[in-house]
Amino acid sequence: MRTSLDCLPCFVGQALDVTRLVGAGEGLRERILRDVLQAASGMDYTRPPPVMGKYIHRLVRELVDEPDPYAGLKQRFNDMALRVRPQLEERVRQAANPFEAAVRLAITGNLIDFGTASRVDEEEVLQAVDRALDTPLQGDAAFLEQAVARADSILYLFDNAGEIVFDRLLLDLLPLERVVGAVKPSPIINDATMEDARSSGITEMIPVVETGSDAPGAVLQDCGEEFLERFQGADLILAKGQGNYEALSHTDKDAFFLLKAKCSVVAEDLGCPQGTMMLTRSQGRGEGAK
Amino acid sequence: MRTSLDCLPCFVGQALDVTRLVGAGEGLRERILRDVLQAASGMDYTRPPPVMGKYIHRLVRELVDEPDPYAGLKQRFNDMALRVRPQLEERVRQAANPFEAAVRLAITGNLIDFGTASRVDEEEVLQAVDRALDTPLQGDAAFLEQAVARADSILYLFDNAGEIVFDRLLLDLLPLERVVGAVKPSPIINDATMEDARSSGITEMIPVVETGSDAPGAVLQDCGEEFLERFQGADLILAKGQGNYEALSHTDKDAFFLLKAKCSVVAEDLGCPQGTMMLTRSQGRGEGAK
Repeated sequence: MRTSLDCLPCFVGQALDVTRLVGAGEGLRERILRDVLQAASGMDYTRPPPVMGKYIHRLVRELVDEPDPYAGLKQRFNDMALRVRPQLEERVRQAANPFEAAVRLAITGNLIDFGTASRVDEEEVLQAVDRALDTPLQGDAAFLEQAVARADSILYLFDNAGEIVFDRLLLDLLPLERVVGAVKPSPIINDATMEDARSSGITEMIPVVETGSDAPGAVLQDCGEEFLERFQGADLILAKGQGNYEALSHTDKDAFFLLKAKCSVVAEDLGCPQGTMMLTRSQGRGEGAK
Repeated sequence: MRTSLDCLPCFVGQALDVTRLVGAGEGLRERILRDVLQAASGMDYTRPPPVMGKYIHRLVRELVDEPDPYAGLKQRFNDMALRVRPQLEERVRQAANPFEAAVRLAITGNLIDFGTASRVDEEEVLQAVDRALDTPLQGDAAFLEQAVARADSILYLFDNAGEIVFDRLLLDLLPLERVVGAVKPSPIINDATMEDARSSGITEMIPVVETGSDAPGAVLQDCGEEFLERFQGADLILAKGQGNYEALSHTDKDAFFLLKAKCSVVAEDLGCPQGTMMLTRSQGRGEGAK
């Protein structure tokens, strides 16, 4: 997906949010904002939005000398999700269609995203969990289930810390011997890194690799060789979140995207109302889940 | 008031709004947005926000070759306001405190502002009129009434088309022989120009001059000599709207600002909740209306 002009105010807003979060002084904030505006002015808009997300957050980490501004938030949401995990598992077990229930809960976990929201409310996430099985899901989980059954190798692109615990519910229903996960190689917003994969127990379930890029979404031109080999070699990609959708919506691989369409630009690209719980298949493929 | 870093996403949003309003093609929109981002990156943030508003809207008018993008909207809201004027007059006549009622309605008219909102709903304005006399007013209209009684010369800075009709209610209660009005010299957003002053009947009530600047607020460094003489010579300034507040909040003249605090930055500067109906006196003066 290319960057929309409507992404531009949001880039500036993201820079404001993160400089506020790290408590940068006014002079430093101004310097960062001027730099981001300049970069946004010269950006290649045919590239996807995570390219700018990477630029902004790297700039802030470097200038503020704070390598992981969202560390505390990541820990908090990992803890929260681990706390509610037994209830989530129970919901899946008791659901009429456990696979679809797991898909819904994995998508619900995608609410824990500090890239699209400057604040995420724990209470709001828990309420969304309560509604997850009754909220309309756009896309048919049965298509994904069939694709999973056919695939010899599955690459699961994780998105955020906290959310990664919700993904365990879906992993529990996948043929784990054929699944490899991928996380970010270093901190970017609240995206999950190897540390989160470990603390959430994911690394005990499946092998986990790093994308090799600190963009908040797997922008392939940026990714490392090991990841690209896994990506190209996989029969099926499961990609969580807006960033991965933005980066990969036009891939010719067979990819399913599981996300909440949180911003208006992504919702418009998907042709759905903002806030939709979305399961959609890559546009390069014939048989769509959508 | 200086430009806040929080104004920056809004500048970009304004550029998006107006390029959409004029139906600019994608290539031209992109060119304008890149230019605005570049300009915002290099802007002197000690200057008030209307400086950038002027830049953005002038750029769009020139590149799109559309000298008055808001002409239709200005006409529509002038017509609407003229249509409801008899009811507004009736409300003032029947009010326990007609002066305060006129102040409230003049501030309510300030909702008709396409600088802070990309859409203004006629129905919403009419509903606000219905609530105007019951909505809390921050600031004491009696202070303004006393200042008016003492002043030998009053300069009334109008803000938007449509709103200018609401201002007539307050003008009706001022000593008109001592009042001069001021409008923008040429189109900027939906700000009132001499044409609006004429069509709303203002020019038959008082002499009206032009600020000499197409900034959406009387930024003095930009204004014409005739206006500056009037401004410096006036005993009392009545200034409508956010743009004039942003431009003149630190003036050492005795100025009263009548506005809806529509954006978070102005609300914070005023120390009031967003949306407040505000009557406040220039910070340079001792006895405040606030």
